[in-house]
Amino acid sequence: MLSKSQINSLKSLQQKKFRREQGFFLVEGHKSISEFIDSPYRIDTVYHTPAFDSKVLNLSQKINSCEISVADLEKISTLKTPQEVLAKIAVPDWPSLSQNELKGRFSLLLDGIQDPGNMGTIIRIADWFGIRDIICSEDTVEAYNPKAVQASMGSLARIKVHYVDLAHFLSNIRLPVFGALLNGENIYTTDFGSEGLVVMGNEGNGIRPEIEKLIIRAITIPRIGKAESLNVAIATALFCSEISRKAIK
Amino acid sequence: MLSKSQINSLKSLQQKKFRREQGFFLVEGHKSISEFIDSPYRIDTVYHTPAFDSKVLNLSQKINSCEISVADLEKISTLKTPQEVLAKIAVPDWPSLSQNELKGRFSLLLDGIQDPGNMGTIIRIADWFGIRDIICSEDTVEAYNPKAVQASMGSLARIKVHYVDLAHFLSNIRLPVFGALLNGENIYTTDFGSEGLVVMGNEGNGIRPEIEKLIIRAITIPRIGKAESLNVAIATALFCSEISRKAIK
Repeated sequence: MLSKSQINSLKSLQQKKFRREQGFFLVEGHKSISEFIDSPYRIDTVYHTPAFDSKVLNLSQKINSCEISVADLEKISTLKTPQEVLAKIAVPDWPSLSQNELKGRFSLLLDGIQDPGNMGTIIRIADWFGIRDIICSEDTVEAYNPKAVQASMGSLARIKVHYVDLAHFLSNIRLPVFGALLNGENIYTTDFGSEGLVVMGNEGNGIRPEIEKLIIRAITIPRIGKAESLNVAIATALFCSEISRKAIK
Repeated sequence: MLSKSQINSLKSLQQKKFRREQGFFLVEGHKSISEFIDSPYRIDTVYHTPAFDSKVLNLSQKINSCEISVADLEKISTLKTPQEVLAKIAVPDWPSLSQNELKGRFSLLLDGIQDPGNMGTIIRIADWFGIRDIICSEDTVEAYNPKAVQASMGSLARIKVHYVDLAHFLSNIRLPVFGALLNGENIYTTDFGSEGLVVMGNEGNGIRPEIEKLIIRAITIPRIGKAESLNVAIATALFCSEISRKAIK
């Protein structure tokens, strides 16, 4: 059984401030947690209700597990309908990416994405298209936000999300830098080659001027109809798809 | 000033049951409402706070407008941060689509999509790619759900969403029917031609067997990475993009 202070401590991980302080985040549900178990992330404790058969998670001896009441789980959970299991996982501190590591493949750069749902969806898209690294400006929404974790559907376990000074990072990398911008090349006729970085901007304001300066090729998704814009996760998917077309064909 | 019963009646439009009974739905925010003003939808009343300059909406004499207090707007609104204006709009009853009307273009068919955010995003995608009709199974989430309206970002004003018996509809239409399915043709090498219907399935269960039977060409988005699936709105965007490539190039 958990003490009141343990419950409060776990529940506080719903908030960024306490994730920062404690260095942990929450993952809910059997499927997502199982993806983290087979990943480089460090799992602190798996909490499950009596009804949940923790054997299905294939927990190693190194992972603590703890049975808690349904009432306690409901207190900690961020979900309207909590699942039977929840894990406390360490926020990773991935080593800095070098020029060499980014060669021969594509990575995504996010400049100030704010919506956690978009973040999670972008992580899931990256995972579908075999992208391994997402490099974010420091003000981009945390990938460890409960809504982002939920929307990533377990894909966060396979994607490294880095938070960096994006302008500084871009100034030090010699790779083709593509950016989703207006009045750029038509995405459907662009030859993306075999490596590079693709910059996606904030939901309302797009890419910041200081980042835009560092973009070598502005790319545009042409519009046929009348919608003013596309959601940033949708635009990211179209970029990933175009980058991958040749490899997939 | 609104009476308590007027407020309750407007607020009830957040729920499907009362939208059905009253035949109206709510649209919030200046930008979205302005798109509905220039559309075939019938606007019943525009409600706005004293601070809002209703002239910017370019309301014709045929549209009622009504000034209400910020407190009343907050009671009616579905948004955490209500905007200054809200419209009550009639749920349309679009005429049935004939074979002839669907020729020479692409339309989307949704089989049991449940999430209103996905629905709204799909409407926005359709609008971006110049698709005019979305034909839904009767159990698909309502396009007039406040979250769907919000996610469509005004695009609902330009898209006709039809609710039909999908199996019956498909049995009576002679057009190429494509469907997002596993183990189908590679979407990147498929020649979609110049007309057809594209069926997207439910978030968890995909396309129902009785609808799948009526699909002529199963199409698959190949996966490079490891995510188990793509969100249905993302998959819809990739289909719309592939269908449009040739026209856009």
